[in-house]
Amino acid sequence: MTKLNTAIRERATLETAPTRYVEGNGIRFAYRQLGPSSGTPLVLLQHFSGNIDAWDPAVVNALAADRPVIAFDNAGVGRSTGQTPDNVAAMARDAFTFVNLLGLSEVDLLGFSLGGCVAQQMAAENGRTVRKLILAGTAPRGGEEHLLAVLQAAFSKTDAPDPRLPLFFTPSSASQSAGLAFLRRVQVRTEDRDTDNGSAVTDPQAKALITWCATPDPEHTMLRAIKQATLVVSGSNDTMLPADNAYAMFKGLSNAYLMLYPDSGHGALFQHHEAFVSHVRTFLDA
Amino acid sequence: MTKLNTAIRERATLETAPTRYVEGNGIRFAYRQLGPSSGTPLVLLQHFSGNIDAWDPAVVNALAADRPVIAFDNAGVGRSTGQTPDNVAAMARDAFTFVNLLGLSEVDLLGFSLGGCVAQQMAAENGRTVRKLILAGTAPRGGEEHLLAVLQAAFSKTDAPDPRLPLFFTPSSASQSAGLAFLRRVQVRTEDRDTDNGSAVTDPQAKALITWCATPDPEHTMLRAIKQATLVVSGSNDTMLPADNAYAMFKGLSNAYLMLYPDSGHGALFQHHEAFVSHVRTFLDA
Repeated sequence: MTKLNTAIRERATLETAPTRYVEGNGIRFAYRQLGPSSGTPLVLLQHFSGNIDAWDPAVVNALAADRPVIAFDNAGVGRSTGQTPDNVAAMARDAFTFVNLLGLSEVDLLGFSLGGCVAQQMAAENGRTVRKLILAGTAPRGGEEHLLAVLQAAFSKTDAPDPRLPLFFTPSSASQSAGLAFLRRVQVRTEDRDTDNGSAVTDPQAKALITWCATPDPEHTMLRAIKQATLVVSGSNDTMLPADNAYAMFKGLSNAYLMLYPDSGHGALFQHHEAFVSHVRTFLDA
Repeated sequence: MTKLNTAIRERATLETAPTRYVEGNGIRFAYRQLGPSSGTPLVLLQHFSGNIDAWDPAVVNALAADRPVIAFDNAGVGRSTGQTPDNVAAMARDAFTFVNLLGLSEVDLLGFSLGGCVAQQMAAENGRTVRKLILAGTAPRGGEEHLLAVLQAAFSKTDAPDPRLPLFFTPSSASQSAGLAFLRRVQVRTEDRDTDNGSAVTDPQAKALITWCATPDPEHTMLRAIKQATLVVSGSNDTMLPADNAYAMFKGLSNAYLMLYPDSGHGALFQHHEAFVSHVRTFLDA
């Protein structure tokens, strides 16, 4: 067997990589790092209520084939210590603390949902550290959200094996089937799994996301402060943060690509994972 | 040298392929075929006033690396005989005549601008022959157009070396620079170049395009008749057929991907040719 084959066989995946910790500013951050050691790292910013093991291995492992990819729990989330803040600006500060603790001088960001709000805040604040930006299933400041109604409806569907089936996927059989495949993928890891989040995380996160959307920004000052190349991604039928948000972000950003996927909801990036990975690669490698 | 290398070295390009002819229904069609002989052929449907040599070799040759690609002049255009019709439906009939003359039972279509209208009509009419659809810089039936005003403004710019610089690209230096590179690429072929079109082509084509947009279709019956997977592409600042058309097509189609490009106009597919080719490949190969 060649060295290359051995390296590929032995390469850590989201399911097999050990969870590591780094501490500073009174917070111990849990994270996993995949992929090669050189190249601009892609840091993943997770959705409301999610932890490291809520990322889709099909997306994370494929992206880590040719770049460093880092999934982490922000302050208070999963196995990270500290308090989950109730506003996006403080979440961005915590994320920068984590990036600095790892000694990363330049990163790309993939922010999903609430993580996409945090990514926007980080990119707007720091044009040196943040090189490129991928915003998936998210909203601009002042954007449209239907969070509480949709969350309530999803959690009332007691016949669904997981609330992410109605929340992240459309009712079509193709989308639900993709949703079941996604749920199988995220459940592969059994050892050293991340900790589920309770209301000490989800209450302030919900407040942060709803406040972000409730904060008017008619002049798009936040988007206009983002100079980095950005890939905006959404599903056609995102019920929580509608695709109109993605189109509005594309129009408000000075250097954005927009990619919308068919018959898909909030979890479009997981449903269309092969296309999404290809689009992210094309974008980051350009 | 291996056989493969020889084949790649000797592979015909848009600049080197001989122009061929096929005749039927009283029309002699001019065309060039590139790429391998097997695989679903991608047939290109050209924009208002364009001929075979108005396609960007950077796009066509890259797409032909792994699939047959066929550029042709529809009836009356370039070196094809027959009369250019003044409506999209008749253009679609002529294009089907050409496809049938080549004996192609299944094709993918890439329609740019007016060619995108023709592609929609063909896909809506014939779900067996048309497998997948790429719609670039185009409008749905009943869509928004600013053709006459923009064309007049472009042709009044006598300082522009080619009307496509103001028509296909934005005023930014990056876009204009990409436009000059595009113009250099389309001028490489000197022998056996296609014939420029006069008013016998552009008058009926202009009528067809304007009529297409002036025909109300509030229920999107044309888009709803298209069941094929579709990739809709537009530039952020298309002045003739605005990107709102692309978003409307994405929403009206049942199985569409939408890709919008930054700082780009009607010629977004040529300006962002590397990304566009990657996106088309990902879409066609899925």
